[in-house]
Formats: sequence, C-alpha cells, structure tokens
Amino acid sequence: MPRKWSSTLLCTALLATLGVAHAAGEDALPGAKPRSMQEILDASKPGDWRTPDAKNLIYLDLDSGRVLIELAPAFAPAHVANIRALAKNGYWNGMSVNRSQDNFVVQWGDPAQEDKDRKPLGRGTKAKLPAEFARKAQGLAFDKLPDVDGWAPEVGFVGGFPAGRDPAADTAWLAHCYGAVGAGRDVAADSSNGTELYVVTGQSPRQLDRNITVVGRVLQGMELLSVLPRGTGPLGFYEQPSQRVPIKSIRLASELPKKERTSIEVLRTDTPLFNELVEARRNRRDEWYKHMAGHIDLCNVPLPTRAPPAKPVAEPKAKAKAKAKPRSARAGRAGSTSRK
Amino acid sequence: MPRKWSSTLLCTALLATLGVAHAAGEDALPGAKPRSMQEILDASKPGDWRTPDAKNLIYLDLDSGRVLIELAPAFAPAHVANIRALAKNGYWNGMSVNRSQDNFVVQWGDPAQEDKDRKPLGRGTKAKLPAEFARKAQGLAFDKLPDVDGWAPEVGFVGGFPAGRDPAADTAWLAHCYGAVGAGRDVAADSSNGTELYVVTGQSPRQLDRNITVVGRVLQGMELLSVLPRGTGPLGFYEQPSQRVPIKSIRLASELPKKERTSIEVLRTDTPLFNELVEARRNRRDEWYKHMAGHIDLCNVPLPTRAPPAKPVAEPKAKAKAKAKPRSARAGRAGSTSRK
Repeated sequence: MPRKWSSTLLCTALLATLGVAHAAGEDALPGAKPRSMQEILDASKPGDWRTPDAKNLIYLDLDSGRVLIELAPAFAPAHVANIRALAKNGYWNGMSVNRSQDNFVVQWGDPAQEDKDRKPLGRGTKAKLPAEFARKAQGLAFDKLPDVDGWAPEVGFVGGFPAGRDPAADTAWLAHCYGAVGAGRDVAADSSNGTELYVVTGQSPRQLDRNITVVGRVLQGMELLSVLPRGTGPLGFYEQPSQRVPIKSIRLASELPKKERTSIEVLRTDTPLFNELVEARRNRRDEWYKHMAGHIDLCNVPLPTRAPPAKPVAEPKAKAKAKAKPRSARAGRAGSTSRK
Repeated sequence: MPRKWSSTLLCTALLATLGVAHAAGEDALPGAKPRSMQEILDASKPGDWRTPDAKNLIYLDLDSGRVLIELAPAFAPAHVANIRALAKNGYWNGMSVNRSQDNFVVQWGDPAQEDKDRKPLGRGTKAKLPAEFARKAQGLAFDKLPDVDGWAPEVGFVGGFPAGRDPAADTAWLAHCYGAVGAGRDVAADSSNGTELYVVTGQSPRQLDRNITVVGRVLQGMELLSVLPRGTGPLGFYEQPSQRVPIKSIRLASELPKKERTSIEVLRTDTPLFNELVEARRNRRDEWYKHMAGHIDLCNVPLPTRAPPAKPVAEPKAKAKAKAKPRSARAGRAGSTSRK
C-alpha cells in the first residue's frame, strides 16, 4: 500500500505483505532475528518442496492461459475418480465457464438447461456419486495451526490443502479458501457428479464447508479466473451464450507427454520451514508494520509454488545457484504468479 | 453451487448463499419459523435503511461505470477532509488505476514516480496527515457480533462499517474486509495523504488492520474494480502506462446537482432486523444446507444496498407496493449489484 511506489521507501508495506519484506530492524541477537518470508523461501531445501502427482494435476486451458488444479483424492476419492475419467474423455473440451459471481465463485460445465440436452459423461464415469463433504480424521496427517477459527474446532493443512477438523466427531474436511475447487450439487447431498465445478474467487465462503464436496484447489492461474467479467444474470450466470468463456480443454497432466506438462513445485505444509513461514506472516516484523496481528487466518496463509529450480547438471556450482534463486521467489497465495 | 442451474431444483444452494433461499422446510410452529434473508429484507421498514450523507459519498467514475464509496469521517476525519478537498479540486480526474494485485487490492493515484513530477494537491488540502489507524472506542456506538474473531478482541459494526474493538485499550478501527478503502502510505505511520487509495479485492487482509488508515468502503460497483486485469509488475502494478485503467473522475456527491447523483440506500447495522439477517446467515436453515455453521465471519456479513423504493405519490397503494418490492432485493456483500 505504498503511496509512492518508486521512491526509496518503495512498497515496503506490500513487500512486507508479500513476504518479501526487509529484514526486521530489531536489536535482537543476530541468531534470533526472525527471517522474512522471502528469506525463509530462499533458505528452503529441495525437501521443503513437493511435486504434485501428475494423476492429481488438472490443466484447465483457457484462451488467456493455463490454470493448474490439484485434486484431493484423500478427501473426495469418488469425485476425483470421476473428474479424472471426465478429463480423459475430453468431457469439458469446448465447453465454457458459465458463471462469475462477484466476491464468490466462477463455475463451468455443460450450459445445457435440460437433462436431455446434456453431454453424456462418457466411459469410466459414474452418473451418481456419494457426498464427500468430510472424512474420518483418524489416520490423517493434520498439521494444525494454533490460531483460533470460528468455523471449525481446529484448522490446519493436510498434504498442502487448507482443512478443518473436529476431533470430537473424528472428521476432517477441506476448507473453502480462495482457490478451492468444489463440485456443484442440487439439494440432495449426493447430487453432484463432478461435471459442474466452481472455484472460490472471493472472501472465503466457509459456510459451504461440510456442505459440499471440495475436490481440490487451484495451484496456479487464479488471476485468469478471478478477472472474468461478472455475469449479469441471477447468481452471476452469463445471460448471453456469447458471454460464456470458452474452455479449450481440461486435461489430466498424467495423460500428456512430459513436454506438454507445466512443471510446478509446491511448498510442503508439514515442515519446520513452513511453520516458520506461517509465523513470519502471523507476526510481521518489518518496519512497515506498527501493530503485529498475533494471528493468521487459515485462508490467509500463503501456499507458495515455484517452477522447479534448474538442475546444476554440468554447470559450475555458483552459476546454477544464481539461476535457481530468482525462480524460488514465487511467494504468495494459492494461484499466485511469480510476479506477485 | 447448483449442478443444474435451470432445473426445478435450481440454484437452491446459491439462492441460499445469497439469502434468497426457500423457506426452511421445518416443522416448527409457524410463528417460530426463521425467515430467510430475502424474507427479512422484504419485511424491512423504511427506518431499517439509511441514506448515506452526500458529503461522505464519493463517485469513482470509470469507463465501465460508477463505483460508490462511503467515507468514514468518524474514523479518519483528517483523511476524509483531504479526500473531500482533493475530489473538489478534481485531483484524480484523468488519472488512473495503476495496480491490480490478485487476491489483494487495486490502487489508484498519481502514477508519477518522482516527487517533482507529481500533481499538486491543490487548495484546501494538507500535504501531511496524522495516522488514523484506530480511534477511541469510548462513545462510539459499536454493534457487536457474538462471533469469535482471531484478529480482534471484538468485531462488529459502526454506522454500517465492519470494525474491530479492543475494550482493554479503548480503541476501535475499521476492518479490511472486501471493499474496504484505505490510504496508501510509506514506512512512516503518518506518510499517507489520501491521494493513493486502495480497495480490497481479495481475501480480507486483516493483518493491515491498525496498520494503515481505512477511509471508507465501497457500497456499490465492486465488480468494476475486482475484474481489472492483474498487473504483471511487482505488487500487481501495470508495467505499461497503456495498461493503466483511466479514471474519468472522482467526485463528491454533495458537489453534484441532485439529478447527477446515484440514489442509494444502505441497510442499517444497528437494528433488530439486521441482527435477524446476520443470524439467518450464521445458521442457514434452508434445505440445501446439511450442516449449519453456527458462525459468521465479520467479512462474510452481507451489507445490502438498494435503490430507494419508488414513492407512492398519487398511485394506488397496491401498485406502489408491487413496484417497490423487486427493488428492495439488492441483497449481497458490499458492492453487490441487484443481480447478485
């Protein structure tokens, strides 16, 4: 939120907000000085990052670019199986984003209004799926945040996904944070089939948690979805077919030759480094901040991604390092780009 | 999140989400049946609505339409005074939105990078303003939510603005919810002058609360700001001047002849009706919801606006009523349109 964005005081506020803050100007012992988010990321080791399984990675290709979605079979196995089959069948190719509602969601699928006009789901798919709103918490590695949350007894991360947990009921579920991908349904809990998918583009609508099946989240490309013109029909549906946003294709990464895949690494959420990063955002220590929040909301925790660093094959060590560094700077929220 | 959006089961989820839900199918006594948000709004009396003071209403006119911003002199009197003077001077007319960062903010002001190139603020303005991050809570009518919040000891509403309060410190402040308008600053707390304004377009960045001066909030037209293409420069600044979004004008409503003003009413936040509406969203009772949240986040509370109902001057009573009703349906978040 800088007033002058090219002065020497440039952008401290937002550099801080983005975790690329100056080091804190504190008088603490050198060893005790908290690191900024950028310093933490720069110090990350290869093991702090993970490469999403290509079988869980969906490419939504629009005219404006590619959106990367990671599926969550640990929470929605039946939906994920259907979505994989639908992608293999090319089900969505040539369909469209039909809805963009401000401060809420975008949604795509078959725009046909009558069942008889709808495209067949194709082979390997199921017409009917169970509700997968929550699952047993037992046996699930849950990296709990210490921060209070009004929507869930506990919040944290499961394999990189923001999640809620109720120890008393032994349930866990994926949270509707920015970038969450869910499966639209009718009134019946088991009325979703994975063909109509929505993505959260607004203030986290956590009231949907435990009410609908979340199938994954956007890792990269949110800025392609969040800018789609808001539909002027009820619920943000586009009133004219010509307003719909064409989908070139939705494909499973594992179905594509390697050279057509988009390389991406995601910061692990089960490491000491991640905990340090969360703390750097919970209490911002750079000089721009005058008040430390002492808190972070589940949906404000950054989930950085990056292009995999170049491998230092036959290159001199120093050169390889210099190459890798700038590419590790993809700090930001789900779906952020390297420019954020 | 309907799978089929034109079936008889149409859109129940989102109609509910939007507060236009079907009545709950419960077996409670008729008198005890909770009303939906739409039913509550339909039952509102003229006294449940307020008309913003034209001296606190700013029109940001873009090529795509008009954004209405309500200023908050109770929290930022010095900034509001400067903003009023800047608007009277036509300071921003012909300037541009220079920044759009995904899931965070848009920002406008003078794009000049050097102090010497910057436009003079003009008469009646101050070059330097005090930090107005928080104010004394004593004497402030604060309509408290019972819901827990991690960022503030207490949250609620002050004259229609989402706010936080710390009774121990006797302070209150405006919260960075979707649509909040703030004054960019440099590192020094008192380095904002109200010329660089930002609007929250993403997940509420509440870590900014008590760290920067919030000057108001968008009442209407958020969908014009939230879709602006994300800038590809650092912090979402547009890299090319040609990418900047022109501002036709920013004017104070009170400076315009009445016929050029946009009529708007805002639901009051200090009424029993508003409390009922919040409860209808805290616990959604329509049949689509299988799990009631029992909670609402400050930044998820809808703040409905509407065009003032037509006055039944010489018309038959029934006709006037029929006219007025559909226009009272502008339910939704800050900045929502009647289509939401």
